[in-house]
Amino acid sequence: MIELAFAKDTNGLLPAVVQDYRTDEVLMLAYINQLAWEKTLETGKAHYWSRSRNSLWLKGETSGHVQLIKEILVDCDQDTVVYKVEQLGGAACHTGYRSCFYRKVTGDALTVYEQERVFDPTAVYGAK
Amino acid sequence: MIELAFAKDTNGLLPAVVQDYRTDEVLMLAYINQLAWEKTLETGKAHYWSRSRNSLWLKGETSGHVQLIKEILVDCDQDTVVYKVEQLGGAACHTGYRSCFYRKVTGDALTVYEQERVFDPTAVYGAK
Repeated sequence: MIELAFAKDTNGLLPAVVQDYRTDEVLMLAYINQLAWEKTLETGKAHYWSRSRNSLWLKGETSGHVQLIKEILVDCDQDTVVYKVEQLGGAACHTGYRSCFYRKVTGDALTVYEQERVFDPTAVYGAK
Repeated sequence: MIELAFAKDTNGLLPAVVQDYRTDEVLMLAYINQLAWEKTLETGKAHYWSRSRNSLWLKGETSGHVQLIKEILVDCDQDTVVYKVEQLGGAACHTGYRSCFYRKVTGDALTVYEQERVFDPTAVYGAK
Protein backbone atom coordinates (compact mmCIF):
# COMPACT_ATOMS: atom_id res chain seq x y z
CA MET A 1 0.00 0.00 0.00
CA ILE A 2 1.25 3.47 -0.85
CA GLU A 3 2.35 5.34 2.27
CA LEU A 4 1.35 8.94 2.68
CA ALA A 5 2.85 11.49 5.06
CA PHE A 6 0.00 11.48 7.57
CA ALA A 7 2.51 12.14 10.37
CA LYS A 8 3.10 15.66 9.01
CA ASP A 9 -0.27 16.77 10.36
CA THR A 10 -0.92 16.86 14.09
CA ASN A 11 -4.34 15.27 13.53
CA GLY A 12 -3.06 12.80 10.94
CA LEU A 13 -5.21 14.35 8.24
CA LEU A 14 -4.26 15.20 4.66
CA PRO A 15 -6.35 16.94 2.00
CA ALA A 16 -7.86 15.03 -0.91
CA VAL A 17 -8.81 17.09 -3.96
CA VAL A 18 -11.67 15.49 -5.88
CA GLN A 19 -11.87 15.93 -9.63
CA ASP A 20 -14.44 14.70 -12.14
CA TYR A 21 -12.47 12.13 -14.15
CA ARG A 22 -14.05 13.24 -17.42
CA THR A 23 -14.06 17.04 -17.16
CA ASP A 24 -11.29 17.65 -14.56
CA GLU A 25 -13.66 19.99 -12.72
CA VAL A 26 -12.77 20.20 -9.03
CA LEU A 27 -15.84 18.86 -7.24
CA MET A 28 -14.82 19.17 -3.59
CA LEU A 29 -12.01 18.90 -1.09
CA ALA A 30 -12.15 16.67 1.95
CA TYR A 31 -9.69 15.14 4.40
CA ILE A 32 -8.34 11.62 4.71
CA ASN A 33 -6.55 9.77 7.47
CA GLN A 34 -4.83 6.40 7.28
CA LEU A 35 -8.11 4.52 7.72
CA ALA A 36 -9.96 6.49 5.04
CA TRP A 37 -7.00 6.00 2.68
CA GLU A 38 -7.01 2.24 3.23
CA LYS A 39 -10.77 1.98 2.78
CA THR A 40 -10.59 3.98 -0.44
CA LEU A 41 -7.88 1.76 -1.89
CA GLU A 42 -9.65 -1.42 -0.77
CA THR A 43 -13.12 -0.57 -2.01
CA GLY A 44 -12.57 1.78 -4.95
CA LYS A 45 -15.06 4.18 -3.36
CA ALA A 46 -13.96 7.53 -1.93
CA HIS A 47 -13.76 7.53 1.86
CA TYR A 48 -12.86 10.54 3.98
CA TRP A 49 -12.52 11.45 7.63
CA SER A 50 -15.36 13.68 8.73
CA ARG A 51 -13.86 16.38 10.94
CA SER A 52 -17.31 17.47 12.17
CA ARG A 53 -18.48 13.97 13.08
CA ASN A 54 -14.98 12.68 13.88
CA SER A 55 -15.68 9.44 12.05
CA LEU A 56 -15.00 7.56 8.84
CA TRP A 57 -17.15 8.89 6.02
CA LEU A 58 -18.06 6.94 2.93
CA LYS A 59 -19.06 9.75 0.59
CA GLY A 60 -22.62 9.02 -0.48
CA GLU A 61 -23.52 6.90 2.53
CA THR A 62 -26.63 9.06 3.11
CA SER A 63 -27.36 10.41 -0.36
CA GLY A 64 -26.28 7.39 -2.42
CA HIS A 65 -24.03 9.74 -4.34
CA VAL A 66 -20.96 7.55 -4.11
CA GLN A 67 -17.68 8.53 -5.82
CA LEU A 68 -16.12 5.71 -7.82
CA ILE A 69 -12.34 6.04 -7.94
CA LYS A 70 -10.94 6.11 -11.47
CA GLU A 71 -7.41 7.28 -10.69
CA ILE A 72 -5.44 8.58 -7.73
CA LEU A 73 -2.59 11.09 -8.06
CA VAL A 74 -0.07 11.77 -5.29
CA ASP A 75 1.95 14.96 -4.95
CA CYS A 76 5.71 15.45 -4.64
CA ASP A 77 5.65 15.57 -0.82
CA GLN A 78 3.13 12.72 -0.47
CA ASP A 79 0.95 14.92 1.70
CA THR A 80 -1.89 15.61 -0.76
CA VAL A 81 -3.81 13.37 -3.14
CA VAL A 82 -6.14 13.90 -6.08
CA TYR A 83 -9.03 11.50 -6.47
CA LYS A 84 -10.32 11.38 -10.03
CA VAL A 85 -13.84 10.06 -9.66
CA GLU A 86 -17.09 9.22 -11.32
CA GLN A 87 -19.64 11.10 -9.22
CA LEU A 88 -22.82 9.06 -9.00
CA GLY A 89 -25.98 11.17 -8.88
CA GLY A 90 -24.23 13.97 -10.72
CA ALA A 91 -23.57 16.24 -7.73
CA ALA A 92 -20.82 16.24 -5.10
CA CYS A 93 -22.04 19.13 -2.97
CA HIS A 94 -24.55 18.74 -0.15
CA THR A 95 -26.21 21.95 -1.42
CA GLY A 96 -27.23 20.11 -4.60
CA TYR A 97 -24.69 21.72 -6.90
CA ARG A 98 -22.43 19.57 -9.06
CA SER A 99 -19.34 21.03 -7.41
CA CYS A 100 -18.84 22.60 -3.99
CA PHE A 101 -17.01 25.34 -5.90
CA TYR A 102 -20.14 26.78 -7.53
CA ARG A 103 -19.22 30.39 -6.72
CA LYS A 104 -16.47 32.65 -7.93
CA VAL A 105 -14.96 35.86 -6.64
CA THR A 106 -16.33 38.85 -8.53
CA GLY A 107 -14.87 41.99 -7.00
CA ASP A 108 -16.06 42.03 -3.40
CA ALA A 109 -18.85 39.53 -3.99
CA LEU A 110 -19.30 35.82 -4.56
CA THR A 111 -21.43 35.02 -7.58
CA VAL A 112 -22.92 31.68 -8.50
CA TYR A 113 -21.69 30.79 -11.96
CA GLU A 114 -23.59 27.53 -12.14
CA GLN A 115 -27.26 28.25 -11.64
CA GLU A 116 -28.90 24.84 -11.71
CA ARG A 117 -28.91 22.54 -8.74
CA VAL A 118 -28.69 18.88 -9.69
CA PHE A 119 -30.84 17.86 -6.73
CA ASP A 120 -32.95 19.37 -3.97
CA PRO A 121 -31.01 18.91 -0.71
CA THR A 122 -34.19 18.61 1.34
CA ALA A 123 -35.38 15.73 -0.82
CA VAL A 124 -32.05 13.92 -0.52
CA TYR A 125 -31.07 14.61 3.08
CA GLY A 126 -34.45 15.50 4.56
CA ALA A 127 -35.47 18.73 6.27
CA LYS A 128 -33.13 20.01 8.96
CA MET B 1 -13.10 41.71 0.48
CA ILE B 2 -14.50 38.19 0.52
CA GLU B 3 -14.28 36.67 3.99
CA LEU B 4 -13.13 33.09 4.33
CA ALA B 5 -13.55 30.82 7.36
CA PHE B 6 -9.94 31.04 8.57
CA ALA B 7 -11.17 30.71 12.17
CA LYS B 8 -12.17 27.09 11.50
CA ASP B 9 -8.51 26.04 11.54
CA THR B 10 -6.48 26.31 14.74
CA ASN B 11 -3.57 27.76 12.74
CA GLY B 12 -5.80 30.00 10.62
CA LEU B 13 -4.83 28.13 7.45
CA LEU B 14 -7.06 26.95 4.62
CA PRO B 15 -6.13 24.91 1.55
CA ALA B 16 -5.90 26.49 -1.89
CA VAL B 17 -6.16 24.13 -4.86
CA VAL B 18 -4.29 25.46 -7.87
CA GLN B 19 -5.55 24.66 -11.36
CA ASP B 20 -4.16 25.58 -14.75
CA TYR B 21 -6.82 27.96 -16.11
CA ARG B 22 -6.59 26.51 -19.61
CA THR B 23 -6.41 22.75 -18.99
CA ASP B 24 -7.94 22.46 -15.48
CA GLU B 25 -4.99 20.27 -14.48
CA VAL B 26 -4.40 20.46 -10.72
CA LEU B 27 -0.89 21.90 -10.40
CA MET B 28 -0.43 21.98 -6.63
CA LEU B 29 -2.07 22.54 -3.28
CA ALA B 30 -0.81 25.06 -0.75
CA TYR B 31 -2.17 26.88 2.28
CA ILE B 32 -3.36 30.44 2.73
CA ASN B 33 -3.99 32.58 5.77
CA GLN B 34 -5.71 35.96 5.92
CA LEU B 35 -2.55 37.81 4.88
CA ALA B 36 -1.85 35.53 1.90
CA TRP B 37 -5.48 35.84 0.84
CA GLU B 38 -5.35 39.65 0.97
CA LYS B 39 -2.06 39.79 -0.93
CA THR B 40 -3.42 37.47 -3.61
CA LEU B 41 -6.53 39.59 -4.11
CA GLU B 42 -4.54 42.84 -4.08
CA THR B 43 -1.78 41.79 -6.48
CA GLY B 44 -3.39 39.19 -8.73
CA LYS B 45 -0.43 36.90 -7.98
CA ALA B 46 -0.83 33.74 -5.93
CA HIS B 47 0.45 34.11 -2.38
CA TYR B 48 0.51 31.35 0.22
CA TRP B 49 1.62 30.83 3.77
CA SER B 50 4.71 28.66 3.94
CA ARG B 51 4.25 26.21 6.80
CA SER B 52 7.91 25.18 6.70
CA ARG B 53 9.28 28.74 6.75
CA ASN B 54 6.34 30.18 8.69
CA SER B 55 6.20 33.20 6.41
CA LEU B 56 4.29 34.77 3.57
CA TRP B 57 5.22 33.12 0.27
CA LEU B 58 4.84 34.73 -3.11
CA LYS B 59 4.90 31.67 -5.36
CA GLY B 60 7.76 32.23 -7.80
CA GLU B 61 9.71 34.62 -5.58
CA THR B 62 12.84 32.48 -6.04
CA SER B 63 12.21 30.78 -9.38
CA GLY B 64 10.36 33.59 -11.14
CA HIS B 65 7.58 31.09 -11.80
CA VAL B 66 4.80 33.36 -10.62
CA GLN B 67 1.15 32.29 -10.82
CA LEU B 68 -1.13 34.92 -12.34
CA ILE B 69 -4.66 34.66 -10.96
CA LYS B 70 -7.31 34.26 -13.66
CA GLU B 71 -10.24 33.25 -11.46
CA ILE B 72 -10.90 32.28 -7.86
CA LEU B 73 -13.58 29.82 -6.81
CA VAL B 74 -14.84 29.46 -3.23
CA ASP B 75 -16.51 26.36 -1.83
CA CYS B 76 -19.84 25.98 -0.05
CA ASP B 77 -18.30 26.24 3.44
CA GLN B 78 -15.91 29.04 2.52
CA ASP B 79 -13.01 27.04 3.89
CA THR B 80 -11.34 26.05 0.60
CA VAL B 81 -10.53 28.01 -2.54
CA VAL B 82 -9.50 27.14 -6.08
CA TYR B 83 -7.03 29.43 -7.80
CA LYS B 84 -7.22 29.18 -11.58
CA VAL B 85 -3.86 30.46 -12.72
CA GLU B 86 -1.51 31.06 -15.59
CA GLN B 87 1.69 29.35 -14.45
CA LEU B 88 4.67 31.34 -15.68
CA GLY B 89 7.67 29.19 -16.56
CA GLY B 90 5.38 26.25 -17.30
CA ALA B 91 6.00 24.31 -14.08
CA ALA B 92 4.48 24.63 -10.62
CA CYS B 93 6.48 21.92 -8.86
CA HIS B 94 9.88 22.55 -7.28
CA THR B 95 10.98 19.21 -8.76
CA GLY B 96 10.65 20.69 -12.26
CA TYR B 97 7.46 18.91 -13.22
CA ARG B 98 4.51 20.87 -14.54
CA SER B 99 2.32 19.65 -11.70
CA CYS B 100 3.20 18.44 -8.20
CA PHE B 101 0.83 15.56 -8.99
CA TYR B 102 3.12 13.91 -11.55
CA ARG B 103 2.66 10.41 -10.10
CA LYS B 104 -0.30 8.09 -9.92
CA VAL B 105 -1.13 5.06 -7.83
CA THR B 106 -0.54 1.87 -9.80
CA GLY B 107 -1.26 -1.08 -7.51
CA ASP B 108 1.26 -0.78 -4.67
CA ALA B 109 3.55 1.60 -6.53
CA LEU B 110 3.67 5.22 -7.60
CA THR B 111 4.46 5.66 -11.28
CA VAL B 112 5.43 8.87 -13.02
CA TYR B 113 2.93 9.45 -15.80
CA GLU B 114 4.53 12.63 -17.02
CA GLN B 115 8.12 11.89 -17.92
CA GLU B 116 9.56 15.23 -18.93
CA ARG B 117 10.67 17.82 -16.45
CA VAL B 118 10.01 21.38 -17.61
CA PHE B 119 13.12 22.65 -15.83
CA ASP B 120 16.17 21.40 -13.99
CA PRO B 121 15.64 22.21 -10.28
CA THR B 122 19.37 22.66 -9.69
CA ALA B 123 19.56 25.29 -12.40
CA VAL B 124 16.56 27.18 -11.00
CA TYR B 125 17.09 26.88 -7.26
CA GLY B 126 20.82 26.09 -7.13
CA ALA B 127 22.52 23.04 -5.66
CA LYS B 128 21.47 22.06 -2.14
